[in-house]
Amino acid sequence: MTKIAVIGAAGYTALELIRILVRHPEAEIVAVTDIQEGQPHVAMIHPSLGGRIDLRVENLSPSEVAARADCAFCCLPHGVSASLVPHFLDGGMRVVDFSADYRLDDPEVFADWYNQKHADPGRLGTIPYGLPELFRERIADAPLVANPGCFPTSAILPLAPLLKAGLIEAGGIIVDSKTGVSGAGRKPRMTTHYPECNESVSAYSVGRHRHTPEIEQILGTAGGKPVEVVFTPHLVPMDRGILTTAYALPTGELSEEKVLQTLRDFYADEPFVRVTDHLPGTKDSAGSNFCDVTARIVRGRVIAIGCLDNLVKGASGAAVQNFNLMYGYPETTAL
Amino acid sequence: MTKIAVIGAAGYTALELIRILVRHPEAEIVAVTDIQEGQPHVAMIHPSLGGRIDLRVENLSPSEVAARADCAFCCLPHGVSASLVPHFLDGGMRVVDFSADYRLDDPEVFADWYNQKHADPGRLGTIPYGLPELFRERIADAPLVANPGCFPTSAILPLAPLLKAGLIEAGGIIVDSKTGVSGAGRKPRMTTHYPECNESVSAYSVGRHRHTPEIEQILGTAGGKPVEVVFTPHLVPMDRGILTTAYALPTGELSEEKVLQTLRDFYADEPFVRVTDHLPGTKDSAGSNFCDVTARIVRGRVIAIGCLDNLVKGASGAAVQNFNLMYGYPETTAL
Amino acid sequence: MTKIAVIGAAGYTALELIRILVRHPEAEIVAVTDIQEGQPHVAMIHPSLGGRIDLRVENLSPSEVAARADCAFCCLPHGVSASLVPHFLDGGMRVVDFSADYRLDDPEVFADWYNQKHADPGRLGTIPYGLPELFRERIADAPLVANPGCFPTSAILPLAPLLKAGLIEAGGIIVDSKTGVSGAGRKPRMTTHYPECNESVSAYSVGRHRHTPEIEQILGTAGGKPVEVVFTPHLVPMDRGILTTAYALPTGELSEEKVLQTLRDFYADEPFVRVTDHLPGTKDSAGSNFCDVTARIVRGRVIAIGCLDNLVKGASGAAVQNFNLMYGYPETTAL
Amino acid sequence: MTKIAVIGAAGYTALELIRILVRHPEAEIVAVTDIQEGQPHVAMIHPSLGGRIDLRVENLSPSEVAARADCAFCCLPHGVSASLVPHFLDGGMRVVDFSADYRLDDPEVFADWYNQKHADPGRLGTIPYGLPELFRERIADAPLVANPGCFPTSAILPLAPLLKAGLIEAGGIIVDSKTGVSGAGRKPRMTTHYPECNESVSAYSVGRHRHTPEIEQILGTAGGKPVEVVFTPHLVPMDRGILTTAYALPTGELSEEKVLQTLRDFYADEPFVRVTDHLPGTKDSAGSNFCDVTARIVRGRVIAIGCLDNLVKGASGAAVQNFNLMYGYPETTAL
Repeated sequence: MTKIAVIGAAGYTALELIRILVRHPEAEIVAVTDIQEGQPHVAMIHPSLGGRIDLRVENLSPSEVAARADCAFCCLPHGVSASLVPHFLDGGMRVVDFSADYRLDDPEVFADWYNQKHADPGRLGTIPYGLPELFRERIADAPLVANPGCFPTSAILPLAPLLKAGLIEAGGIIVDSKTGVSGAGRKPRMTTHYPECNESVSAYSVGRHRHTPEIEQILGTAGGKPVEVVFTPHLVPMDRGILTTAYALPTGELSEEKVLQTLRDFYADEPFVRVTDHLPGTKDSAGSNFCDVTARIVRGRVIAIGCLDNLVKGASGAAVQNFNLMYGYPETTAL
Repeated sequence: MTKIAVIGAAGYTALELIRILVRHPEAEIVAVTDIQEGQPHVAMIHPSLGGRIDLRVENLSPSEVAARADCAFCCLPHGVSASLVPHFLDGGMRVVDFSADYRLDDPEVFADWYNQKHADPGRLGTIPYGLPELFRERIADAPLVANPGCFPTSAILPLAPLLKAGLIEAGGIIVDSKTGVSGAGRKPRMTTHYPECNESVSAYSVGRHRHTPEIEQILGTAGGKPVEVVFTPHLVPMDRGILTTAYALPTGELSEEKVLQTLRDFYADEPFVRVTDHLPGTKDSAGSNFCDVTARIVRGRVIAIGCLDNLVKGASGAAVQNFNLMYGYPETTAL
Repeated sequence: MTKIAVIGAAGYTALELIRILVRHPEAEIVAVTDIQEGQPHVAMIHPSLGGRIDLRVENLSPSEVAARADCAFCCLPHGVSASLVPHFLDGGMRVVDFSADYRLDDPEVFADWYNQKHADPGRLGTIPYGLPELFRERIADAPLVANPGCFPTSAILPLAPLLKAGLIEAGGIIVDSKTGVSGAGRKPRMTTHYPECNESVSAYSVGRHRHTPEIEQILGTAGGKPVEVVFTPHLVPMDRGILTTAYALPTGELSEEKVLQTLRDFYADEPFVRVTDHLPGTKDSAGSNFCDVTARIVRGRVIAIGCLDNLVKGASGAAVQNFNLMYGYPETTAL
Repeated sequence: MTKIAVIGAAGYTALELIRILVRHPEAEIVAVTDIQEGQPHVAMIHPSLGGRIDLRVENLSPSEVAARADCAFCCLPHGVSASLVPHFLDGGMRVVDFSADYRLDDPEVFADWYNQKHADPGRLGTIPYGLPELFRERIADAPLVANPGCFPTSAILPLAPLLKAGLIEAGGIIVDSKTGVSGAGRKPRMTTHYPECNESVSAYSVGRHRHTPEIEQILGTAGGKPVEVVFTPHLVPMDRGILTTAYALPTGELSEEKVLQTLRDFYADEPFVRVTDHLPGTKDSAGSNFCDVTARIVRGRVIAIGCLDNLVKGASGAAVQNFNLMYGYPETTAL
């Protein structure tokens, strides 16, 4: 049994995380923290958790958290995480961090894309990226794991095996993603106000979405050479789900069957990647930790598709998968 | 040609109003006002109006407005309207007011339900309620018309003819309404944040929604005796539309055909009320100024149904219908 | 460990049932049947089940099913169930039946509402109605349980305790329900074609929905006297969820607190009924086996609200809850 | 005044067409035809048209149509159109054809993509493509106009000016489109059954969507050399709207401002193309005949975006725009 603290309780990833952890036979949530007045019951903030968890949201210091729990799931915004995580680690805890703070290896790249100096630059480059399909071994031993971004997972899983196998070019990869609105977080804004975004699709953050360098770094690692992507996210009127359609140039003659077989071989033993023959919809993986991937060849171009639930395999499910690896529990527990 | 000022430009009713008025051959919008920094173009606030109107949003005083326009459509919150409308009237303008400020006859009832003293109590009781189907003649001559609330119109149109005809009891009327989210306005809030209200239905303001006394007052006028309603609004995941299902006790033996014929007779010459044999959906009237009404008798209870677009017949379409009556244009112009 | 057959695999209740049962440590699905050509893999019919179950859909006779499984979950249309269930029972199996065939006690009432003669009338009146909150003991011992309808559960849970306590009148109860579209089944029809029902609310089957006699029978049992309801279902553009708003007359002086306390007392030990102070939305219970209930008093009328996921507590979750009771597993297993 | 026949009345494009034409001061709908039993009133098939049009749907021969009307809007499936249109033309009528039958110049290409021999091959290559922004003059004089496909318009309008100006390469253009569900027509199918496609995004017809050769042909004409596109349509849970995100390689050094200015110059006098600085959402043009276009440059790649209402500028609005040109009415009449 591992004692868990959920740090940053108000958002959708925390909600989904708690939903999963209450089913986990080896995890006990002992603290839920946030900056909230008056210690409201968790179910006051997330009514769907009523009857599933009986804890109050507390405003605890890292040492108070460390005195109570073994493992922290940090559901905090970027910048904030890097200022707190070192304290959890110093307190002897292990940490799964949901923010982008520990995903990029290079503090300069972080500063460029996030418009701020990194608060804990010394650790960058040493933290495993929490995608078990690529970095399972490093995750198992790590005190701190950087949980991947939702878009990156949906792009990396269909593309990485093709880059690793040298089947596609590293340059000029186009990543056209479509996401549900929960990806924008729980804070009400004009762009996520129901009558604004319902019945509408739009591109956003074109050319400047912060998941770009993350996709490039991990694909670059997978392919063994620098990768450049054009990443265009789109907001789609649905609660959850990401569909990524990626376009890449083959390095040589390439059949659709060869691409599909490469994916099938790569993920043959993976519990949470389904290589499908059909074109998946986001609903197929909604509420689950699956990522569905497939590929097509159209007019000499490889189309690689990844499909997942942004709150599960794109966030909290992946986090629990990492947690299971870190603590030696069966990887699929509670998922 | 009538010169129009739209007062309070940022919300959905103003957007819908402008969308209608730009098609109106006898209306020219000469001013659009709001408290906005830097006089943004109307299309900056409502991108869908790009290419349809070429005006900036200005912060004008009532006298500046009166110097430019003949008629003001006030799309302001309750309380604010009553403090501005008198100035427009003093400036010689005629006014269609979207707020609740001039709908109730009794300042005490207003104070009870709106938790504030009325700013212009002397006018109450003299202002026609802008439902042409009931008050067409009074509207035509009025300098100021109180444009009806969206829920009240959806409840009054199916019920008023039955009360007038003495077919249903005035007490114990249940009004169960379902509304799209645009009815909650354009200000982002947690309850209207997409991932909160999408894929969910809930009741709200049970027993204390401010449209209650408005429904009672107008139905009371129609039936010639005090009416009491239990009004329960529900939020439904769609942009626009209201479906009201009302339950009333018949005063005596009553056939479904008799109820339907009473409605058909009452609305025989009305351009915007369709008495349907089928059960209407809100989509049938979406984007139009129609209100669909029908009725059934189930186990001795009358079920009266009203269905409309909350932004059109429930707000801006009704306002233009009133405007047409006030200025002697054909009632259906631009609608 | 109990061996399970899922009878009738193509619909949404079967999908949801399998989703739950694959998490059940004491249930093993050994057969999935339907009338399908060519024994397709279950994941061909329900792509979301890929990687969770590895069975083919077979066209099996009842005796073939009985040779393999202990317990049948019959996800069949009404009429069909009553012609198959006796064979499963004869084969020594226990059955949870999703259809309406065994819910009504009186074959005449069945014939009236379902327009057909009952195929197994002798059993009617002896089969427990699968609502553990009311009939837990009878369910535990039964070879056959009639799993409740989705609307009835949402209406019965908030109303039954009030009738039992004599707080509300048995006559003139209005049940106004709002349901997501999955309640209409998986067969494509014009009314459930996306562009027809999206962005629209409508009432349907007014006065003739078949859940009416079911609600009346169970509420009648609860209250000890005949109950009459006016039941109006509405179709709402969302996948799943039912919100029922019921209106009843109190039998005497009655405070809101008294009503709420009666509900709280009645459900104090129930794992799946949450009596809430706030007004619940269907999203709070989506994907869960919870039913949220609350009540208000408005102008002397009791408003009782029930809220659940039509596919879980309204169907497959309730079925597994019944299964757990029948086989002595902890009632909340897998739920 | 021109007398209009609407051929093929049951679908969404006919509905939208009638909605527009009833507002047209110079168009009189004199016949609405379809293969329906018993001549139902148009409002029986499209309840939203109740009170707007008072005609029955008739099963008329082309000569009966020609005896009554001047102009036919053919809202028929491909294949069917080409067998009827010649008869309308022979009868002296002018025709706006919604199908794909007259869009492609080459009967071989038609046969390849539509899996059928063309019924009227002799006319191919002589029929103007009904995109006034590119072919206004040819449309004005034509007896028959091929109304464009919805996806093609959304891709051609942002790309054609860039090809014409030689700013982008003709090869390797990626067209990633997202469409609302009404684009799939009005016939209920599993893929458009509400609980299947709601809350889900998926790609479909990858590499074999029939709008591919149409996009290529028109862009090829615009650019003066053969164009090759990879076209990937996606189904998005909303009623209407298409957002197309196209990716192209610049032919040389190219600034974002240069691309935007090229678009602005090209569409300076167009009433229905808005070149926006912001990233448009489909809601901005919903219900209107506008197409919003914009562009960005990301990592040396041109991203061109087009956004429209598939039923208006993507079908019936464009048809009326063509009609206005053909009959010399102001191009924006009724739009």
